[in-house]
Amino acid sequence: MIQISRGLENVIIKETSLTYIDGEKGVLRYRGYNIEDLAENCEYEEVVHLMLFGELPNAKQLQEVKEKINQSYEVPLEVLEAMQKLPRDADPISLMETAFSIMSIWGKRINRLTALDIIAKASTIVSNVYRIKEGLKTKIPEPSESYAKSFLEATFFKKPSADEVKAMNTALILYTDHEVPASTTAALVSASTLTDIYSCITSALSALKGPLHGGAAEEAFKQFVEIGSPDNVEKWFEENIIKSKKRLMGFGHRVYKTYDPRAKIFKKMAYSLAKEESKKYLQIAEKLEELGVRYFSQKKIYPNTDFYSGIVFYSLGFPIYMFTSLFALSRILGWLAHVIEYLENQPAIIWPRALYVGPEKRDFIPLSQRG
Amino acid sequence: MIQISRGLENVIIKETSLTYIDGEKGVLRYRGYNIEDLAENCEYEEVVHLMLFGELPNAKQLQEVKEKINQSYEVPLEVLEAMQKLPRDADPISLMETAFSIMSIWGKRINRLTALDIIAKASTIVSNVYRIKEGLKTKIPEPSESYAKSFLEATFFKKPSADEVKAMNTALILYTDHEVPASTTAALVSASTLTDIYSCITSALSALKGPLHGGAAEEAFKQFVEIGSPDNVEKWFEENIIKSKKRLMGFGHRVYKTYDPRAKIFKKMAYSLAKEESKKYLQIAEKLEELGVRYFSQKKIYPNTDFYSGIVFYSLGFPIYMFTSLFALSRILGWLAHVIEYLENQPAIIWPRALYVGPEKRDFIPLSQRG
Ligand SMILES: CC(C)(COP(=O)(O)OP(=O)(O)OC[C@H]1O[C@@H](n2cnc3c(N)ncnc32)[C@H](O)[C@@H]1OP(=O)(O)O)[C@@H](O)C(=O)NCCC(=O)NCCS
Ligand SMILES: CC(C)(COP(=O)(O)OP(=O)(O)OC[C@H]1O[C@@H](n2cnc3c(N)ncnc32)[C@H](O)[C@@H]1OP(=O)(O)O)[C@@H](O)C(=O)NCCC(=O)NCCS
Repeated sequence: MIQISRGLENVIIKETSLTYIDGEKGVLRYRGYNIEDLAENCEYEEVVHLMLFGELPNAKQLQEVKEKINQSYEVPLEVLEAMQKLPRDADPISLMETAFSIMSIWGKRINRLTALDIIAKASTIVSNVYRIKEGLKTKIPEPSESYAKSFLEATFFKKPSADEVKAMNTALILYTDHEVPASTTAALVSASTLTDIYSCITSALSALKGPLHGGAAEEAFKQFVEIGSPDNVEKWFEENIIKSKKRLMGFGHRVYKTYDPRAKIFKKMAYSLAKEESKKYLQIAEKLEELGVRYFSQKKIYPNTDFYSGIVFYSLGFPIYMFTSLFALSRILGWLAHVIEYLENQPAIIWPRALYVGPEKRDFIPLSQRG
Repeated sequence: MIQISRGLENVIIKETSLTYIDGEKGVLRYRGYNIEDLAENCEYEEVVHLMLFGELPNAKQLQEVKEKINQSYEVPLEVLEAMQKLPRDADPISLMETAFSIMSIWGKRINRLTALDIIAKASTIVSNVYRIKEGLKTKIPEPSESYAKSFLEATFFKKPSADEVKAMNTALILYTDHEVPASTTAALVSASTLTDIYSCITSALSALKGPLHGGAAEEAFKQFVEIGSPDNVEKWFEENIIKSKKRLMGFGHRVYKTYDPRAKIFKKMAYSLAKEESKKYLQIAEKLEELGVRYFSQKKIYPNTDFYSGIVFYSLGFPIYMFTSLFALSRILGWLAHVIEYLENQPAIIWPRALYVGPEKRDFIPLSQRG
């Protein structure tokens, strides 16, 4: 029996010990630990260790991860130079794709050490996506107590507050992994041909960029901006979602049929960070959430992680155009961990089939006889 | 029942009217036409029209395709500049990934016109991959009677013979499409998130690069070089394939369980083109084929398209490092055609699942209490 798997829905592409999702109950765990516990209590580097090495680190192991990352922020000269040469209005993910494409020139096979190296370099690249687009001098992140702190310092060239570092840290943890959505699938497909690891990331970035996937946080936030004021939410919803049948961005999910647990955490963070302008967006978002949940509840469509994350990033000082890159910065860990897991355990080339529905065999007709 | 699809083997990811493969009988058709007929009788641009618009063109339609391509060879300045800045020993596919990443900055939605534009620009990029790696001045292909001719002229900066143009043309047709192997799957995964079309190509390139996929023609040829002389084939086979259990590159296929029909055509072409050095490689290849077919026949492992294609490319004057880029130059049409077909007919985001086999829920332990 031949059955098409629409968007590969429910097709199992691999086994994993990384991430467990219960889409009905809204449960997300990394290697058995609830996302709520990790987001609340961990540094990002602990999650790096957990994902790559299987266990939360002890103090010594954590130190080792941090040291390796701290030593690896430098990127080849060509990378920042090429990024700088590109137009300032370039799409940030295009800049990241370019950076990783160039790094693939020195392409490496994947292992846990190259993974740490890449995680460090991703910080440098994303930081400089911002700096280049803002017309600032490029900057290599400097070693500090934490990845989140080094990243914020390099990006904004000022000391972030402890709250800001904590928020950045939590955002990195929340976006770390989510099983095998499109971007992770793209990384796996590439990895399965034994391509180099940078190319796997480029592949994933290409898929992440789309508005149905990683691009959704920006799209969600743009809705808030377009709505402009809490008083305008109902009218906007009526016109855009109910009448014009536009998709409500930041809503809906292939796996969650209830609240995305990450959305709840991002919402709480948004409340504790928001000031002035972002407070207004938060009010808009809340009202929009209410209408959306009511309107879509029969279809089991709820806010996903991208609905509130933008308000957190915006409150940290990031412009909207950076949201997808911040998602990428964090998810690179998930991509790497899945690729390593795949190649170690079931390294078959990923090669599905298509069902042929076209014309039967046709006789060739020379050009001169075609009508 | 939960079943893992090893490498997505036999999973149907989409319907297609593009390519039909009978892996048991060794049949390959594009939109109903046998590959043998197309390879023998068509210009590449006819196949471009066939794949994108569904039918072989009449003279007027063919002219329109050629004109559109001829007008589109220019690429943004930044693209060739960035490629030139990179180290000369850079992997050619990394250079292509970089070029397409940069082009994604002006990212476009896909349609049949952008497809023709991209096919033209791909010629410029691949041509200059060669020129840059050889330390030559960059060059934009110039309009001529055919895509194959413009490409060879720009690459080698000399008039190719009619036989050379014909061979390049046939190679382009043979590599045009092959249903949904890893690279096409990567392109589809990216496209399904509604990312821009250049990023879809970048994603596909990343996957193509791997030695199990597009990298195989180079690997196959390197075997011939390593063997060095027809007298050495048996010894080499004994040591490498039988004893060390290395994979015979250019052999084996997920779909074909007999001779790859493209391999037969490439072999014939190799005979008619080969001179001096390539003649020696051809003799080596033939002997290796014989041993391989005998040794692997029980497993139904036969030469695939990459086994002889390298000898054709080499005879045309291309260094080994160019083989994968030449594959890419041709396959871009297949990637584009599949992406367009997917988005028009069943545009669901591609999002499979993983089967969780990791630890059950674990209680969080703070850093200070970890052993
Ligand atoms: C995430 C998403 C792509 C999941 O896609 P999917 O599993 O393929 O589900 P579908 O797109 O087939 O949607 C199923 C149904 O719900 C509807 N739906 C899903 N998400 C919706 C949304 N955000 N707004 C309005 N309707 C939505 C679809 O229109 C469809 O309705 P139908 O059955 O009447 O045709 C989809 O929910 C979406 O586009 N969301 C908006 C973008 C977004 O926030 N992405 C980030 C995901 S983390
Ligand atoms: C193309 C290829 C990746 C297909 O992979 P696949 O469908 O997943 O098949 P597998 O890799 O599982 O191979 C099936 C069996 O055949 C063997 N096999 C397949 N191709 C082989 C080759 N080229 N040399 C030696 N053994 C080969 C495998 O070792 C395996 O044997 P086993 O069952 O005893 O373990 C594989 O044939 C290959 O690696 N070929 C060499 C690279 C190449 O030429 N690629 C270009 C493809 S167009």
